[in-house]
Amino acid sequence: MKATNFAPGPTPVPDRVVQKMSEPVLTHRSSEFSDLLRQVTADLKHVFQTKNDVLVLTASGSGAMEAAVVNLLSPGDRVLAVCGGKFGGRWIELCETFGLDALPFDVEWGRAADPDEIDRVLEEKGPFEAVLATHSETSTGVLHDIKVLGRVARSHGCYFIVDAISGLGANELRTDDWHVDIALTGSQKALMIPPGLAFISVSERAWQGIERSALPSYYLNLKRAKDSFEKGLTPYTPAVSLLMGLAESLGMMKEIGLEEIYRIHERNARVTRAGVAALGLELFARRPSNVLTSVLMPPGIDGSALLKTIKEDRGVTIANGMEHYRGKAIRIAHLGYDIAPSDMLVAISALEHGLSRHGYEFETGTGIAAAQRVILETS
Amino acid sequence: MKATNFAPGPTPVPDRVVQKMSEPVLTHRSSEFSDLLRQVTADLKHVFQTKNDVLVLTASGSGAMEAAVVNLLSPGDRVLAVCGGKFGGRWIELCETFGLDALPFDVEWGRAADPDEIDRVLEEKGPFEAVLATHSETSTGVLHDIKVLGRVARSHGCYFIVDAISGLGANELRTDDWHVDIALTGSQKALMIPPGLAFISVSERAWQGIERSALPSYYLNLKRAKDSFEKGLTPYTPAVSLLMGLAESLGMMKEIGLEEIYRIHERNARVTRAGVAALGLELFARRPSNVLTSVLMPPGIDGSALLKTIKEDRGVTIANGMEHYRGKAIRIAHLGYDIAPSDMLVAISALEHGLSRHGYEFETGTGIAAAQRVILETS
Repeated sequence: MKATNFAPGPTPVPDRVVQKMSEPVLTHRSSEFSDLLRQVTADLKHVFQTKNDVLVLTASGSGAMEAAVVNLLSPGDRVLAVCGGKFGGRWIELCETFGLDALPFDVEWGRAADPDEIDRVLEEKGPFEAVLATHSETSTGVLHDIKVLGRVARSHGCYFIVDAISGLGANELRTDDWHVDIALTGSQKALMIPPGLAFISVSERAWQGIERSALPSYYLNLKRAKDSFEKGLTPYTPAVSLLMGLAESLGMMKEIGLEEIYRIHERNARVTRAGVAALGLELFARRPSNVLTSVLMPPGIDGSALLKTIKEDRGVTIANGMEHYRGKAIRIAHLGYDIAPSDMLVAISALEHGLSRHGYEFETGTGIAAAQRVILETS
Repeated sequence: MKATNFAPGPTPVPDRVVQKMSEPVLTHRSSEFSDLLRQVTADLKHVFQTKNDVLVLTASGSGAMEAAVVNLLSPGDRVLAVCGGKFGGRWIELCETFGLDALPFDVEWGRAADPDEIDRVLEEKGPFEAVLATHSETSTGVLHDIKVLGRVARSHGCYFIVDAISGLGANELRTDDWHVDIALTGSQKALMIPPGLAFISVSERAWQGIERSALPSYYLNLKRAKDSFEKGLTPYTPAVSLLMGLAESLGMMKEIGLEEIYRIHERNARVTRAGVAALGLELFARRPSNVLTSVLMPPGIDGSALLKTIKEDRGVTIANGMEHYRGKAIRIAHLGYDIAPSDMLVAISALEHGLSRHGYEFETGTGIAAAQRVILETS
């Protein structure tokens, strides 16, 4: 691909995957489909680093977030939700919609949740049924410490539910080892297929909880999905073409290896951060995810106008900040292992272009050169 | 395409649509995406024959069925659901899941609901909040009389909710003229794109009802979808590549014209029915949909074994009967206007092959010849 899209999903789709999705759509009640579904599920378990069930939903990631809440929890359940960005806030919206008693654990945007603080709140204000968190918070670029949070949640007997939509497959997430009862992700991030599918893992412990849930569910019912899967089916017509593409992208990920994929993301992130820092810009995320680099705009520079310039003059898409950071931060994604470090030079080049057009003072090429140094050091 | 797939969806995807879906996936927060969403929505309104809102959900058709129930109705609401097949039965499952008081209006499989009978039940056992029905019942091949049912439902002050998943765009459905408050469909039927999107129309009257609903919803919330649409967005990441394909397929449908598309489906249905009847087989549906032709297996012929033979020897997919008609009926789809009448000869040829291999006595070519006569008569 010609690298021009640095939005944090939909990620550019590799050519091999596009080709696969162009083949005739399988009938979802055929043995070929059942074989595909079983293969995809086995490969997803590897990416999730889990021996638990992983189920396929035809929905975007938010549908899987709803599935976690309505299958496992009940009205009135007290839950603690880590809120340090737009997607953490989605947990609160969801819990409130379904009548849970949700306490937000507010974290300043750009910072990661402090596990010790969460431990204290769980102790002082508990008991809670569940802790809900975000792995890589796409609105700020922060990576929360799921490993330690999982240990804390488990020590208080809470279910641990993790939105790993943008992070899974880019940053390490060890579902089983880190005590994650439900992890979920979407198709259009590190799995590199178009949006429309979501995947959700369910621990044995969570299945026991699901038996007790008092909330109704049908389309997003996980028990139905599990029962159908045992027959090689999905309960409702799935997004078959996307599953065909997913089989190919998961195959590619297996060829490369998960550890190597993490390293690729880490390297692209380092290249980008070095370029941004050399331009004298401040990184938004204190504990940065390798999915995207969030950058605070310097005083006097309107991020929205800058991104418009970059898009119009250079054809490059960089994402705006979200909610109250719209125009105040920009987000450069490096998501999907198909991106080479030199692709990130395109993003830094476009950023330099935008900054110079909007009156920011710096020496042209400073960002590019710093990024290039990291490329050479890590080659 | 080489015609080998006669399952009632996923429908074969036209080449132009496949090409469109192979282009780089648009970012769902771009002005290009907003333009696409607005165009698609306007074109969908034409296919739905409605001036009402039509909303896009990233889900299969069953997700849109759930959306109809959880947005418009409330626990304890009395509803009447027409049940003459698997998909009619899905309305009952859904209503029971969400605590509604659902009365099934049972119709023998293969027959259409009698509007006079429904009128009587609404009168004698009413009042009911809503009537739920199926346009083209894919499990039996029956087309229900939505026009008259709509008049009956309205005369009793009921909301009228129609699952038009397989029928919309193949058989006439005049949402507004026929008093349909909520109509819904999926992407993988007459719209000829892969599964993963659903579309739902909402009348002004239904929006008023939605304000009063006591059931919670989030991912499938229609008010959120409407509010986002007004900003050119969807509330959650949509299946963008499928929407790109949909824009193309709706464009193709506009070029041909809706009336002509109905005629194409009708002709393919007539060709198929003639072939089947000439073989001495009985049509399952008394009021047949133009989406598919359901055929009862003669005594002593196992439909499942016959379909296996057809698949193995001829590479042709014909669908099995569903639930208690598995092996007792088969279903030959002629769905998507891209299918030529001569493609149906492939299906009849394969059917003759299967019948002869399984010991059914008939003169080879009888079905093909009868189908061919209809092709020539209607050319």
